[in-house]
Amino acid sequence: MINTPIFTIVKYLSTALLLGSVATDQEREIRAVLQQQQDDWNRDDLHAFMDGYEPGESTTFVAATVTKGRDAVLANYLKRYPSRDHMGTLTFTVLDVRPLGPENASVIGRFVLKRTAEGGGDKGGLFTLVFRKTTAGWKIILDHTNP
Amino acid sequence: MINTPIFTIVKYLSTALLLGSVATDQEREIRAVLQQQQDDWNRDDLHAFMDGYEPGESTTFVAATVTKGRDAVLANYLKRYPSRDHMGTLTFTVLDVRPLGPENASVIGRFVLKRTAEGGGDKGGLFTLVFRKTTAGWKIILDHTNP
Repeated sequence: MINTPIFTIVKYLSTALLLGSVATDQEREIRAVLQQQQDDWNRDDLHAFMDGYEPGESTTFVAATVTKGRDAVLANYLKRYPSRDHMGTLTFTVLDVRPLGPENASVIGRFVLKRTAEGGGDKGGLFTLVFRKTTAGWKIILDHTNP
Repeated sequence: MINTPIFTIVKYLSTALLLGSVATDQEREIRAVLQQQQDDWNRDDLHAFMDGYEPGESTTFVAATVTKGRDAVLANYLKRYPSRDHMGTLTFTVLDVRPLGPENASVIGRFVLKRTAEGGGDKGGLFTLVFRKTTAGWKIILDHTNP
């Protein structure tokens, strides 16, 4: 009885729905991390913003050069954005989220910084992120942002 | 007898060795794809070079803009590198290969193009790739190259 065609169909549909909802949760959770980063940046909390990145030495930022380790990435942010004026107002636009198995995903997006002339003027560009699902939630392990 | 401590240790070590060799194969295979691309480029075969990318519409190239689909990526290459002089001599340097589960990996690298003045002069930059293991081997599904 367990192998009737109707059982097989129900089993197939449940699996399809389950996989569908996993993918959607993944994307929703990842978008929430980026929304949180945007909010943290815009209330001038760079340390909270960094919580979107995985702690440790393997987290990597690629721009004009390669920076390894979350602390080094933070140091770069602090150097490039030394004041509220330099930070300006950040907007992320997510262009694509792609699952890479159950525990990783890539994200393509665009950032825009609205800034005063004193802060360096407006700035923006494309980025690619690789996220990893950790026990503390989805974290960026690789950030390639156009220099 | 099957659960003696020594059996548990041997089982653990075999698994560790197996996982270790999987990761190494992954990296070796991915490096071979990039070596092949370099060779194809340097014998002026852009179509063979494109074989390193996954065919289809989801393959994405990020630079100053986002290009979707391998055919569109090829069209961009043909536009930017219309002659042997523009293609020059390509060297890839792989800086980092990171497994993302068994079927994906990220690669950070640098490209250098040695070119004549007529070809536009030397050029180079950093890139991040996402690879996917397909039935036809490891293929690039996402390429973010600094514009």
